[in-house]
Amino acid sequence: MPGVARIVTGEDIRKIIPVPYYGPAFHDQPILALEKVRFAGEPVAVALAVDPHVAETAAQTIVVEYDPLPAVFDEVEAVSSPVFVHDELKPAGTFADLKHLAGRRDTNVALDFHLRRGDADATFATADHVFEHTFRTPQQMHTPLEPHVCIADARNGSVTIHSSTQTPSFVRAEIARLLGWQENRVRVRTAFLGGGFGAKVYVKLEALAVALSLFASRPVKLALTMSEQFFMISKHASTFRIKSAVTNEGRITARRCEVFYNGGAYADIGPRVAQKSGFSAAGPYDIANVAIDSYEIYTNRPPAGALRGFGVPQLVWAYESHTDLIARGLGLDPVAFRRANLLRDGVPHATGTVMRDAGLAAVLDRIVARIGWDQAFDRTPRDQDGGTIKRGRGVAIGIKASISPTTSAAHLAIAADGSATLYCSTVDMGQGSTTALAQIAAEVLGVAAEAVNVVAPDTDVTPYDMGTLGSRSTFHMGHAVRLAAEDARAKLATLAAEAGVPEGSNLPIPEIFRRRYGMQAGTIIGSGSFIPSYAAPDPATGLTANATPFWMIGGSGAEVEIDTETGSVRVLRLVTVADAGTPVNPAIVETQISGAAVMQLGFTLLEAMEFTEGQLRNPSLADYRIPGIRDLPPRFEAEAVDATQTNGPYGAKGVGESGTFGVSPAIANAIEDAVGVRITELPITAEAVYRALRLAAGDSLAEA
Amino acid sequence: MPGVARIVTGEDIRKIIPVPYYGPAFHDQPILALEKVRFAGEPVAVALAVDPHVAETAAQTIVVEYDPLPAVFDEVEAVSSPVFVHDELKPAGTFADLKHLAGRRDTNVALDFHLRRGDADATFATADHVFEHTFRTPQQMHTPLEPHVCIADARNGSVTIHSSTQTPSFVRAEIARLLGWQENRVRVRTAFLGGGFGAKVYVKLEALAVALSLFASRPVKLALTMSEQFFMISKHASTFRIKSAVTNEGRITARRCEVFYNGGAYADIGPRVAQKSGFSAAGPYDIANVAIDSYEIYTNRPPAGALRGFGVPQLVWAYESHTDLIARGLGLDPVAFRRANLLRDGVPHATGTVMRDAGLAAVLDRIVARIGWDQAFDRTPRDQDGGTIKRGRGVAIGIKASISPTTSAAHLAIAADGSATLYCSTVDMGQGSTTALAQIAAEVLGVAAEAVNVVAPDTDVTPYDMGTLGSRSTFHMGHAVRLAAEDARAKLATLAAEAGVPEGSNLPIPEIFRRRYGMQAGTIIGSGSFIPSYAAPDPATGLTANATPFWMIGGSGAEVEIDTETGSVRVLRLVTVADAGTPVNPAIVETQISGAAVMQLGFTLLEAMEFTEGQLRNPSLADYRIPGIRDLPPRFEAEAVDATQTNGPYGAKGVGESGTFGVSPAIANAIEDAVGVRITELPITAEAVYRALRLAAGDSLAEA
Repeated sequence: MPGVARIVTGEDIRKIIPVPYYGPAFHDQPILALEKVRFAGEPVAVALAVDPHVAETAAQTIVVEYDPLPAVFDEVEAVSSPVFVHDELKPAGTFADLKHLAGRRDTNVALDFHLRRGDADATFATADHVFEHTFRTPQQMHTPLEPHVCIADARNGSVTIHSSTQTPSFVRAEIARLLGWQENRVRVRTAFLGGGFGAKVYVKLEALAVALSLFASRPVKLALTMSEQFFMISKHASTFRIKSAVTNEGRITARRCEVFYNGGAYADIGPRVAQKSGFSAAGPYDIANVAIDSYEIYTNRPPAGALRGFGVPQLVWAYESHTDLIARGLGLDPVAFRRANLLRDGVPHATGTVMRDAGLAAVLDRIVARIGWDQAFDRTPRDQDGGTIKRGRGVAIGIKASISPTTSAAHLAIAADGSATLYCSTVDMGQGSTTALAQIAAEVLGVAAEAVNVVAPDTDVTPYDMGTLGSRSTFHMGHAVRLAAEDARAKLATLAAEAGVPEGSNLPIPEIFRRRYGMQAGTIIGSGSFIPSYAAPDPATGLTANATPFWMIGGSGAEVEIDTETGSVRVLRLVTVADAGTPVNPAIVETQISGAAVMQLGFTLLEAMEFTEGQLRNPSLADYRIPGIRDLPPRFEAEAVDATQTNGPYGAKGVGESGTFGVSPAIANAIEDAVGVRITELPITAEAVYRALRLAAGDSLAEA
Repeated sequence: MPGVARIVTGEDIRKIIPVPYYGPAFHDQPILALEKVRFAGEPVAVALAVDPHVAETAAQTIVVEYDPLPAVFDEVEAVSSPVFVHDELKPAGTFADLKHLAGRRDTNVALDFHLRRGDADATFATADHVFEHTFRTPQQMHTPLEPHVCIADARNGSVTIHSSTQTPSFVRAEIARLLGWQENRVRVRTAFLGGGFGAKVYVKLEALAVALSLFASRPVKLALTMSEQFFMISKHASTFRIKSAVTNEGRITARRCEVFYNGGAYADIGPRVAQKSGFSAAGPYDIANVAIDSYEIYTNRPPAGALRGFGVPQLVWAYESHTDLIARGLGLDPVAFRRANLLRDGVPHATGTVMRDAGLAAVLDRIVARIGWDQAFDRTPRDQDGGTIKRGRGVAIGIKASISPTTSAAHLAIAADGSATLYCSTVDMGQGSTTALAQIAAEVLGVAAEAVNVVAPDTDVTPYDMGTLGSRSTFHMGHAVRLAAEDARAKLATLAAEAGVPEGSNLPIPEIFRRRYGMQAGTIIGSGSFIPSYAAPDPATGLTANATPFWMIGGSGAEVEIDTETGSVRVLRLVTVADAGTPVNPAIVETQISGAAVMQLGFTLLEAMEFTEGQLRNPSLADYRIPGIRDLPPRFEAEAVDATQTNGPYGAKGVGESGTFGVSPAIANAIEDAVGVRITELPITAEAVYRALRLAAGDSLAEA
């Protein structure tokens, strides 16, 4: 076709990158499909052209002949299916603790995580009450409004990559590994992102863009359409079986959790989602006997990875729905039941880690207070005459560990005029990290935050950061920035001493430089690195004394209105509260909490990727609806509980995910409160509520 | 005119930059001419257009009405002229020692530097012999093959400048000063330069580009044509009166130097040229009584500034011509006369600084050995029958102080895979600094130089450097890089200790990071700053104990052939030798020496800016000839004398200018050796030699 430079296939790529597989957990994902295609939508060939419209037209004329193979799509079925997505598990990536899984055959289990504390089985055998439920969530989408985009220029023995990535340092290392180059020949630059939410962590388009640039010997740009985004990465569908032993007095004494995460065809970071969320599957409760099994499962679906909450919103949805079902079953007030079982500082978590700086009670108290839980509640609108509209209330609270142990580094330059420049690879994607990190540096230096210039991530310039993910930046990078600024401050004192300036003279910074260097000259560089202390889990039990450097705590209270004739759910009020430690920037923190809540509201009421035999039916924002301004509850409130994270930078902790935790179960709990039916699968559509109401009324749905 | 956005004048610029004057020595140069135009070719207005051809056409249609004012063009006349280029000297720039000059009225002297050692006058009064000569050089051009180019984007409260500058740190500070902004709002980026030679130091196009971008609210590009370069910056025309007292035995006992540098209409760095070269005007000789007066003079010519050698090639031209005239006058061998008077380590220089690590004798010895000075020399080519071709030989040697004290800073990052990235603002413009500095870092780290990636200067990224000028980078930045690498190496040892690695275990770097951070993670940042120790000169005498951290020594030997019928000069052989300390990269050093020699060959034989009443007659490479490959002598040799600069990084010193020193006087000395006439003004054209030959023969030139 005129204007087409060439067509590139996976086999072509293998000629220049002999082992063309990438991935953070396992090197399992081919840059373009090789031998077999594992999900409908997997890229198989590329048309290279100068004109993107020509490239698109050319790509559409490519005819691929597929030999159909058996496939498996459901995460629970895939555990025992004879169909294997991968013949053999590929080598593990950067995480040392996954290395033992490589080479496993005849399995779709990409990770099985097990935690055992006390003796759950024995406790169940003698329990006053046992409750067991299963909850499900569908595969869902990040849908950042800026889809993935990447430009790679691999010429002259080095490569520069401009990418919409949340993890520039990882991309650098992974591309260097694929090419067999040193990292300093790979430069990754990231501008302000139009949203990330976990979609843009680890390698996405970059490996393909680099390979194509090597073929083309010129820069290559890849930009996904909104529809193509659906096949890039998504949120795990999940199935969660949860079982609790409870005393007559309402104390939970044992819990068994089985979580199945549908990872799709390639692991991406899924195994770590299964592991890191897995160990918090028992929830924010003080339970002596816990057994958790958490599985990352390969299926023939588009890959799933990290999405705001890293698996925890799926867990909270299940365990906080379960909590209400227990309270209801025992005739207990759901808030009182929670309070009686809540973890408190000084008590060990299910992982064995002793709780510290976890404002669970404070968050629950604020939800209860704001929503007026203890006050009278009118279950039927006064102006509603037909009696078909019912109101209810619900609360839910969740907890998440930070991803740990992870490393952040930063450095800070002070110019001879006293102005400061901060270098770090934290990616600002709307969460306000640039502002918060400038504030931390400014606080140390005693200058205005506006005086600190923050350089955009550029791996040739800004030092290593594990990634902007898991609400880790304020805590980890905040510490690195603090250390860098403290180092710069100390070097400034040394400079003053060298210039003969007496201590405590309070000379302006430019004057110190001038005295030392005879003119306006010189730069001070302070640097800092941070990794929290961490104790590896016991291999036998999964227990650890130090599971996380800080806990994220969040919850919601919801008031809903159900039309019993149609099943339609209207959220009248959504109160979301999170423990933010001592917020660096209260305005940003509040926006983080409300942003997380509205995102989870979409996952609760609207969003699901719908498949027919592995074929995605709704890959567009026309058919896959995300919440807009009209979907917001009339009363939509966010609040940060002011607490102190003792080991945080200036008492701060991460809060980007906490607002997601409670939304789904609070709404489901409110629905049961209103109309007495329990929804166990997201999203909670009008149809689902209607079906539940009809079933509860004893109707045969076949007739309906 | 269609397509023209607007016309901008100096008055327009004053509306947004209230004091729109810039310059390193004095803030004397308006961004666009204000009130009066001080040289023919000064920019007076700008046409802004999207299409550069439209802008050019529009600029040509602008009609400017000038009121002629009296003018002065010659540097000696200007000293006593009643015509003043500036009504009042403007405030001094960054150099504290020029501040007392601001506000002077009724003078064209932008700097008068005086040095007094011993009693020259008394020595002259009782001298065996006194020799006095005057030498001149014309205004000449840097002519880097890439003319000045600058893009400024001043939007959103910050400005990014892409500029062909040798001094990104200075440009940042100066633009910040002009705008009244903090330096961290000004970003200056510099790609590999297509040559600099001093033309691109300090502010050139940048202030205008920034002002225009502020007007246009969009990026603005300014790119000079080769012809426009002639009005931007040039090499000082000079007049040098030199007088020596010599004993019957051939020892120089006193020297008086009067140097007049023609600085043109704006000072640029000229005052520092006059001062810093001035103190070495007495040459590389051990002279007990010295009186130096060096002047930077304003005239109505295009501005002059730094050009490879910072005034010293003009001085060596004069004092080494003078040396041969003395030797010839006393009937002494010029080499033996030099050897008898040469400065040696341990003896004080004219400035009072005791000589150290100055390989003067070694350089002279190598020139003499290579050129076969002590061997028979055939003054008439055998195959030349008419007898009109005469051959001669000459040598010359010069010395230069490094610009001091100046500051360089660097930092170095080690990534988790062990690869290193070096950050410094040294500008590579063909001199090979990137390679040499990578070598120094690699030497400290014990890795291959190829493994060190050097980031291009970018003031948002790379720390302060005084500038890439005056052959200072290998020494000053070399030390800063060494210190940064040593700091990184020490931090690596700390990291290893934190990871529990026993000392001396020789674990590969990536394994140290992996043990410390649990995966391939982290960055180490080492930083270093360097400024040499320095003693300010005594205000009364100009003497100092510590004039320079290292001496640059270079010289040449030349064999020439003169056609006595036409005066044409053919250089048969040019041997140039320099003291390079212990070269970091011998191949680069040799190229530096030969590059300097060929440049000075152009200044010696070809190049002069020709003026008629201040109007430049030859602003093009058609009319202003620079040496091409055919102008090279058939035997063109460069050699670095291997020595040790005790205080240099790995024993290295700067060498970029040393190759210029001896070329002009060696050729002039060879000409006198061949045909007995003395040329005292550059360039040495056939016409000049022909006139000298006719004058020597007693002919009236009016008749010829």
